[in-house]
Amino acid sequence: MEKDRLEAFSDGVIAIIITIMVLELKAPHEGDWHALSELAPEFFSYVLSFIYVGIYWNNHHHLLKAAHRVNGGILWANLHLLFWLSLVPFTTAWIARSHYAAAPVTLYGVVLLLSAIAYWLLQAAIIAEHGEDGVLRKALGRDFKGRLSPVLYATAIVLSFWWPWIAFGIYAVVALMWLVPDRRISSVVK
Amino acid sequence: MEKDRLEAFSDGVIAIIITIMVLELKAPHEGDWHALSELAPEFFSYVLSFIYVGIYWNNHHHLLKAAHRVNGGILWANLHLLFWLSLVPFTTAWIARSHYAAAPVTLYGVVLLLSAIAYWLLQAAIIAEHGEDGVLRKALGRDFKGRLSPVLYATAIVLSFWWPWIAFGIYAVVALMWLVPDRRISSVVK
Amino acid sequence: MEKDRLEAFSDGVIAIIITIMVLELKAPHEGDWHALSELAPEFFSYVLSFIYVGIYWNNHHHLLKAAHRVNGGILWANLHLLFWLSLVPFTTAWIARSHYAAAPVTLYGVVLLLSAIAYWLLQAAIIAEHGEDGVLRKALGRDFKGRLSPVLYATAIVLSFWWPWIAFGIYAVVALMWLVPDRRISSVVK
Amino acid sequence: MEKDRLEAFSDGVIAIIITIMVLELKAPHEGDWHALSELAPEFFSYVLSFIYVGIYWNNHHHLLKAAHRVNGGILWANLHLLFWLSLVPFTTAWIARSHYAAAPVTLYGVVLLLSAIAYWLLQAAIIAEHGEDGVLRKALGRDFKGRLSPVLYATAIVLSFWWPWIAFGIYAVVALMWLVPDRRISSVVK
Repeated sequence: MEKDRLEAFSDGVIAIIITIMVLELKAPHEGDWHALSELAPEFFSYVLSFIYVGIYWNNHHHLLKAAHRVNGGILWANLHLLFWLSLVPFTTAWIARSHYAAAPVTLYGVVLLLSAIAYWLLQAAIIAEHGEDGVLRKALGRDFKGRLSPVLYATAIVLSFWWPWIAFGIYAVVALMWLVPDRRISSVVK
Repeated sequence: MEKDRLEAFSDGVIAIIITIMVLELKAPHEGDWHALSELAPEFFSYVLSFIYVGIYWNNHHHLLKAAHRVNGGILWANLHLLFWLSLVPFTTAWIARSHYAAAPVTLYGVVLLLSAIAYWLLQAAIIAEHGEDGVLRKALGRDFKGRLSPVLYATAIVLSFWWPWIAFGIYAVVALMWLVPDRRISSVVK
Repeated sequence: MEKDRLEAFSDGVIAIIITIMVLELKAPHEGDWHALSELAPEFFSYVLSFIYVGIYWNNHHHLLKAAHRVNGGILWANLHLLFWLSLVPFTTAWIARSHYAAAPVTLYGVVLLLSAIAYWLLQAAIIAEHGEDGVLRKALGRDFKGRLSPVLYATAIVLSFWWPWIAFGIYAVVALMWLVPDRRISSVVK
Repeated sequence: MEKDRLEAFSDGVIAIIITIMVLELKAPHEGDWHALSELAPEFFSYVLSFIYVGIYWNNHHHLLKAAHRVNGGILWANLHLLFWLSLVPFTTAWIARSHYAAAPVTLYGVVLLLSAIAYWLLQAAIIAEHGEDGVLRKALGRDFKGRLSPVLYATAIVLSFWWPWIAFGIYAVVALMWLVPDRRISSVVK
């Protein structure tokens, strides 16, 4: 019951984040395909960010499913995660407007890395509330993707100074890695 | 309970999509009726898109009512549908700003067609989870509108290259077809 | 349960409508009180529209509380109401930008009148579903405010052609009339 | 059940308020770190306002948890609180755009003060509905932070006329004060 409202608020914020990014796709006044093609950079960064925010919603959904109680620490850890996610529309827009320059691609990775850390902190706060023997602890026993992602983000951040496109490619690979169904939590919890 | 959150998130995204379209109706600085009349193209495309997004919310509501469980595939099929719907405000704005030029009207139909395919995939994912004998399968036995719509969208897309207004008229006819109450699912499920 | 989702979606749309109006209050670059005072027209129309949308949310809340079932007709009657409410941010902005010119004040009243009619249709659809003897029918026996409001809107619309400020004053009076607590439904239903 | 919808609507409005503030962070066209650094004033005011709106959501969450019934007065007291919170994005943007000039910093404090008063009124309305012996009354016995905050806001408002940065610092201190976990309500209610 308490958890319900945490989920509802998070759903609201994530729904807004994922949707306002589309406001960056500004309709041109010319009605031809060439005008549309100039929006390609905006479109590609939108697609990637939509998938990333979708992954976070998906994982948040699974994580909270395993939680039974919330406390003040969990509320703030959750707001902390939402804060970093709320910067995704900005970094997405900066990447597109600067045509994938080095600095925006670096910042995009930094926001992804900080979001991943915030997610990890939220997970830790939920585990702490439920105890080491909780079902969540067991379910997260081997958190392979969750450990690999920050390493890949950090690598991409370093590479972005010289080769922004390679860094952007790594972000896309991490997103694809998460898109592959993850039976870990669902199999244990359900 | 799990389904609740999928519905809540979808409701949030669809509510934002249907509402941010109105931001495209930019209030003029002149306070006379002539200034208002210049917004007529924006208004008509807004009305059509409001009805379309309303139809999707309505059908999504009925579809999820018949679902009892969700899995990872359903979550992503749902996000995939929301992705295409999230492009409706953009195509709506492009149609209006370009004064119903051919390319935007074509793109509008493409987004409608891809949304329809995404809806069909979501429906298939829910049926797969619930089994062929599920109440949903029975309810959707003769999915007349669901089969006719893509055909009409495809026809309109082809026609839009030469006659955008006829294509737009077909979009409006499909919307009207869905507005007519559909007792199919409700009669079986309820 | 079915009703829950109708409420959730309506809450989402109304929450967005009531909040995006504030985007019209564009922060000036100058940091002095004079720059702020130039936003007074925007602020006053924002306050009135915030109250109106709040009244609709409030009444919608009471109306749905008395409903137990929803059908296709109720879903569309509800979307129809949300459509007219979604135009409130536009008319609010137009009033402010044109500095309370006649045409925008007229249009504001027209949107209020159409919203009131849409609300009445929604109420009728809910009563029809629940039967004449339903608690709602009884509760709404003497719908004094609901009958007076459209008359006042119509009067204000006519007057707005010559005296927009008097019309705006009438809108404010109707809002105040609704702000006064209405024990009607709550006393019967609760 | 009735309370649920009040929470859902408030969550929606607060989620939108906290998220649309990020729209003020407009991505620059230049893709270098210097262009980013020029957004520092926007970023800092965004962080502070994000924390403030988060605090209100958090406290609102705790307050409503202790409530069991809602009435018309509570609904309007809640909308009144949401009204003042809805002005936070505007004051946040004004502070940033004017580079922390005196008037915007004063207004920021005024909106915080009025939000605090509105919160206090909502609390009073809930206590009135539940009676003096209600669990909430007991839980709020020594409302230290709730009494100190308005005093600090008022002090900052006065100081802002001469030293806006000191006033801004006080706002930050009040925010930090609230971030420290408050075991008061949770310990009594839970």
